[in-house]
Amino acid sequence: MAQAASALIDDFARHGGRIGMAQAAFPRMDRWTDLSTGIAPWSYQAAASAQSAAELPDPAALSALEAAAAGFFGADPARVVAVPGSDLAMRLLGLLLGRRSFVFRPAIVRPGYSGHAAMWGGHEAMACTAEEITSIAPTHDVLVLARPNNPDGIVADPLLLEWASLTMSARGGHLLVDEAFADADPACSLAGRGWPGLIVLRSFGKFFGLAGLRLGFVIAPPAIISDLRALMGDWPVSGPALATGLAAYRDTAWHGAQRARLATASQRLAALLTRNGIDIVGQTPFFVLASAEHRDRLFVHLAEAGVLTRPFDYEPCWLRIGLPRDENDWARLDEALVIWRTQ
Amino acid sequence: MAQAASALIDDFARHGGRIGMAQAAFPRMDRWTDLSTGIAPWSYQAAASAQSAAELPDPAALSALEAAAAGFFGADPARVVAVPGSDLAMRLLGLLLGRRSFVFRPAIVRPGYSGHAAMWGGHEAMACTAEEITSIAPTHDVLVLARPNNPDGIVADPLLLEWASLTMSARGGHLLVDEAFADADPACSLAGRGWPGLIVLRSFGKFFGLAGLRLGFVIAPPAIISDLRALMGDWPVSGPALATGLAAYRDTAWHGAQRARLATASQRLAALLTRNGIDIVGQTPFFVLASAEHRDRLFVHLAEAGVLTRPFDYEPCWLRIGLPRDENDWARLDEALVIWRTQ
Repeated sequence: MAQAASALIDDFARHGGRIGMAQAAFPRMDRWTDLSTGIAPWSYQAAASAQSAAELPDPAALSALEAAAAGFFGADPARVVAVPGSDLAMRLLGLLLGRRSFVFRPAIVRPGYSGHAAMWGGHEAMACTAEEITSIAPTHDVLVLARPNNPDGIVADPLLLEWASLTMSARGGHLLVDEAFADADPACSLAGRGWPGLIVLRSFGKFFGLAGLRLGFVIAPPAIISDLRALMGDWPVSGPALATGLAAYRDTAWHGAQRARLATASQRLAALLTRNGIDIVGQTPFFVLASAEHRDRLFVHLAEAGVLTRPFDYEPCWLRIGLPRDENDWARLDEALVIWRTQ
Repeated sequence: MAQAASALIDDFARHGGRIGMAQAAFPRMDRWTDLSTGIAPWSYQAAASAQSAAELPDPAALSALEAAAAGFFGADPARVVAVPGSDLAMRLLGLLLGRRSFVFRPAIVRPGYSGHAAMWGGHEAMACTAEEITSIAPTHDVLVLARPNNPDGIVADPLLLEWASLTMSARGGHLLVDEAFADADPACSLAGRGWPGLIVLRSFGKFFGLAGLRLGFVIAPPAIISDLRALMGDWPVSGPALATGLAAYRDTAWHGAQRARLATASQRLAALLTRNGIDIVGQTPFFVLASAEHRDRLFVHLAEAGVLTRPFDYEPCWLRIGLPRDENDWARLDEALVIWRTQ
């Protein structure tokens, strides 16, 4: 059992959202409560017209989307470019930054998003902790971290990051801040800072609950924006993503309601876990990071109750748990945790 | 007037489908008949579920789409990878192929798609004619051509291309055949050949009339497929594109009906142009290439009647004309051409 659980963990520790894989591993389930991602479980509802899928996306619609997104981010529109998912954008940036020099030294803050290690093509990234930023920034070409961090929710000190960005840019380097989970707290974002060398990544799908649309943004100095535009060409994102994104970023009433939903659900989730004796070691409005001595068994126990969560191969106690969508999902998680606690 | 027309031509000679730009240049129009692209005017109708936009695309759905597309192309599924538009894939391939060597010599067959010249990042591509392939293949690293060609409709000799592919691959090079307009005639495709060094690009949006979805495919040797997958990551295309593409590639009855519609409309368009004294110099089931001594004036005349067509800056007589969608569009084009002929 311990071995079987451990093999399972490896399968599910790469990315969340693998319901097909969960179904294969736990074939008796016919309905899953997917808490394995950090994607908001309530989606922005916008019916993109059939025309948006039929016609080539118009450059004017792309500009309008980027302007609306820049307003939402509090960023200079001239520094904002839409991309077909921030995950793909990471590797495009890795290629563009890496080809500028023969000796290229990227660094990534660990723990962090698995995609940060995979964005450098042939180059090996130096892994460091947040505490090591002061020694890493002066000697590396790019430093990548998420803010808030995934999965531990830590929000790195802006003064430290400003120093790192300036230090790196003085040598032609860049600080890349992945703000995939920053939308729930606009005050937290660095998107409007415009520090030399600062690159910010934003994700559309997590806050708006539309990860399938593949839409993200890069906020960067003009030379990088220009390189990215040249690489992606005239139609970087789909027509449905353009139409839905434009409506979503302009809908300020919905932003407020979604932020309230996320904050409430995240607090409720933390309380539910604590009540059932599970430690909380990190939290954002999108997910809670739990720590459990028998993490692998807890993962399997929840999966056998139809609740998919997200383990990590590098940290044997950690389990990231996303937000339940509705009362059915809450009840399912609650029941499974009560059985776990009392068994 | 001649100068004004010429400046306009430059604006519209980059890509088709620029209705926003047409509206600005001809503000009195309120409804456009867009014949400026080679996209089929009849779209495949598939209602992608709201779930496909909400959830992260499942890797199993991606594999199913690639398998269905491979069946449609007559290609080995192991050599097929889905991309977010064949236009973006061109530049990703340009980057991946270009970084393999310090001295990199790409060549492109002209006339051809403007994107072929723009896919090489910092490298300059040698432009050659189809007749020069025999001398270009032995001395270049990549040779790119479209088949059927855009805009002249020429279908390059497969024996010549087999020789070119083998010749180039013997030196580590590649032949890249852009089959964006090959879907109307499956017998024409090289997707199933598997020659060493052969890379084939396919477009979903043109045949299925869904250019806004941004979906395409690369059919290539395993090393290139592997590099592309690593670059694009786990979610290369959107959930709606996955769902719609899977249904579309499996719908063989629709394929036959669409091929018949395309062939009929293309013949009707050629007859209409000829009847009005306009020469035809190229044709595919997706568009007709016309030649007119006063091409710039004809472009403006048609635009003033609400019909947008596609001029080319490098060939002052050429005008590419796509297929009218319905009888209203046919009548509009017909009336404008009768006035042109009789004025």
